[in-house]
Amino acid sequence: MSLNDCGRHNRFLRALRRLPVDTTPIWVMRQAGRYLPEYRASRQRAGSFMNLCRSPEMACEVTLQPINRFELDAAILFSDILTIPDAMGLGLEFIEGEGPRFARPLRTLESIAALGVPDPEVELRYVPDAVRLIRRELNNRVPLIGFAGSPWTLACYMVEGGPTERFAHIKGLMWDHPQALHQLLDVLTQSVKLYLEAQIRAGAQAVMLFDSWGGVLAPGDYREFSLPNLRQLAQSIDRGPDQVPIIIFSRGANGHLEALAQTGADALGIDWTVSLSEARARTGGRVALQGNLDPAAMYAAPESLRLQVDLLLRDYGSAPGHIFNLGHGITPDVNPEQMTVLVNAVHEFGKRQELLA
Amino acid sequence: MSLNDCGRHNRFLRALRRLPVDTTPIWVMRQAGRYLPEYRASRQRAGSFMNLCRSPEMACEVTLQPINRFELDAAILFSDILTIPDAMGLGLEFIEGEGPRFARPLRTLESIAALGVPDPEVELRYVPDAVRLIRRELNNRVPLIGFAGSPWTLACYMVEGGPTERFAHIKGLMWDHPQALHQLLDVLTQSVKLYLEAQIRAGAQAVMLFDSWGGVLAPGDYREFSLPNLRQLAQSIDRGPDQVPIIIFSRGANGHLEALAQTGADALGIDWTVSLSEARARTGGRVALQGNLDPAAMYAAPESLRLQVDLLLRDYGSAPGHIFNLGHGITPDVNPEQMTVLVNAVHEFGKRQELLA
Repeated sequence: MSLNDCGRHNRFLRALRRLPVDTTPIWVMRQAGRYLPEYRASRQRAGSFMNLCRSPEMACEVTLQPINRFELDAAILFSDILTIPDAMGLGLEFIEGEGPRFARPLRTLESIAALGVPDPEVELRYVPDAVRLIRRELNNRVPLIGFAGSPWTLACYMVEGGPTERFAHIKGLMWDHPQALHQLLDVLTQSVKLYLEAQIRAGAQAVMLFDSWGGVLAPGDYREFSLPNLRQLAQSIDRGPDQVPIIIFSRGANGHLEALAQTGADALGIDWTVSLSEARARTGGRVALQGNLDPAAMYAAPESLRLQVDLLLRDYGSAPGHIFNLGHGITPDVNPEQMTVLVNAVHEFGKRQELLA
Repeated sequence: MSLNDCGRHNRFLRALRRLPVDTTPIWVMRQAGRYLPEYRASRQRAGSFMNLCRSPEMACEVTLQPINRFELDAAILFSDILTIPDAMGLGLEFIEGEGPRFARPLRTLESIAALGVPDPEVELRYVPDAVRLIRRELNNRVPLIGFAGSPWTLACYMVEGGPTERFAHIKGLMWDHPQALHQLLDVLTQSVKLYLEAQIRAGAQAVMLFDSWGGVLAPGDYREFSLPNLRQLAQSIDRGPDQVPIIIFSRGANGHLEALAQTGADALGIDWTVSLSEARARTGGRVALQGNLDPAAMYAAPESLRLQVDLLLRDYGSAPGHIFNLGHGITPDVNPEQMTVLVNAVHEFGKRQELLA
């Protein structure tokens, strides 16, 4: 695949490198997810969410479902950010209606000191295996994105043991035992590095770091406990001969866009609470931007949804380096027909934007 | 009470007016709440949360509990932002462990058109009655804050019918029927105005607008559906002969601090995801700032909590116009002893800050 010709197989990677494209590329966070009836059928057949992740065949099947149904410009590996802590022995379960839970959350300094770095080709072998299979099945129709959770976000889940609104345990650790938290973040940084390198070797054509809980930190804490590990990853991951681009999505951390643009990442995911024109101004053309329609726009009438897409593309303007996405994952009760409306609107209006460039 | 002498009875109102104080004043959102055993006993006795709100005697009792126990510098009326929609006939219930629910959420344009503005001296009479009683019982020990929800935030609850993460109905209304949403926001703005004016006439010495859901809006939507109604309230409320100050807390809307500082409000509540030094710089000394310790700091060891207070006061610096608060409400599982640690640290370090001024 050459970077010089354009079209569905290539416009996502070109936009990540801030090269001109024929129209704005689009993919959607959680595009392989519960809003799709074919996903729900696969999930049912697998018996559990983790069975879906652990079977390369099933992960491949659900990864391709949205690609076969919609004119999306990238596929994203079907998996979960918690595969790494699971491989570290914390005992991951997904409880219906509650989300992920660890049987053995980290609640002592000893349990942190005892953690090892999982070998992605051994304990997490099913992930590079899935990447290889998906690449073969995609057959270069669209590029494949690999991903991992950020060290801070993984640490939140591992210490809290599951979803939380209060972050009492992880922040208690942060303030009372900052060195222990740094030790945990270091092990996670090394684990994420090896994990993403394994995905890249297996064929991932871009990788994304999900810092889903970056936004719960006060600015000083963010600069100490999330940002440095993101920077270290962006600068140390071996990107292979194709120099695979790295996308960082630090949700709710819009106060830190300037700093994030200087981590070495090629692109930033942007949530919907900042405008793309402001994000562009604040990141100074250093990175591509991925986002950022309010996910609730998928509940609006088709004509309202099209209007929101139009406004968003006009706000971004005509510079290269925009990948359209929602500002957060697509929600399970969205009508799949709305994805067709969304994708068509982006490609239609994105083409016009390109003519304006 | 004169504004010229200083001490517990006065430093909160002086700081709101950006006058010098003897030490940094502090109060805490949800200071009369479930973390206090005496509150839980009152709540038990009342039978329901709304019984607590609707009885001036019980509302007075719980309002005073934290004032009697801690050296806090302001009391806040014990009530709920949903009293207005309740008085509009939506049928408010609090379901244990789930939060508020409306029996009759607004799901049709007709139901919006049918809404009337409640008379605060009739349907909401129990609120000014509580304010009068609390003022009498406080006997000028500390000032009393009244409050209301912002029009946008009330509209979210009224259209969704209860807590939500997706905001599907309210945002569907916003994009598909913006004029109907403006109509709803106008009725709410008028209702909030009369409601806060009644609290002021009854003796509230400051009033606060809680725009708890401002932060879920994209910037353009915020400027259309939340900010104008906040501005209209700040500029139109009759503040009475004492020119009662107005505080606006638009949670998660830190991208709009500059605009919020120009609404006519005297002070802004600040959540913990922006530093006070940055908030000060961006609001240009136009307003006092209230905040903004990460509420999770209450889970840290006492010495860590004191260190966080110290860092926060140093970051704010020595200008007048700071009221210490948490960046969001105190959580129910906090040890009440931590409030003593917090209040003492603020008064101790705040005094030093004052000397530095």
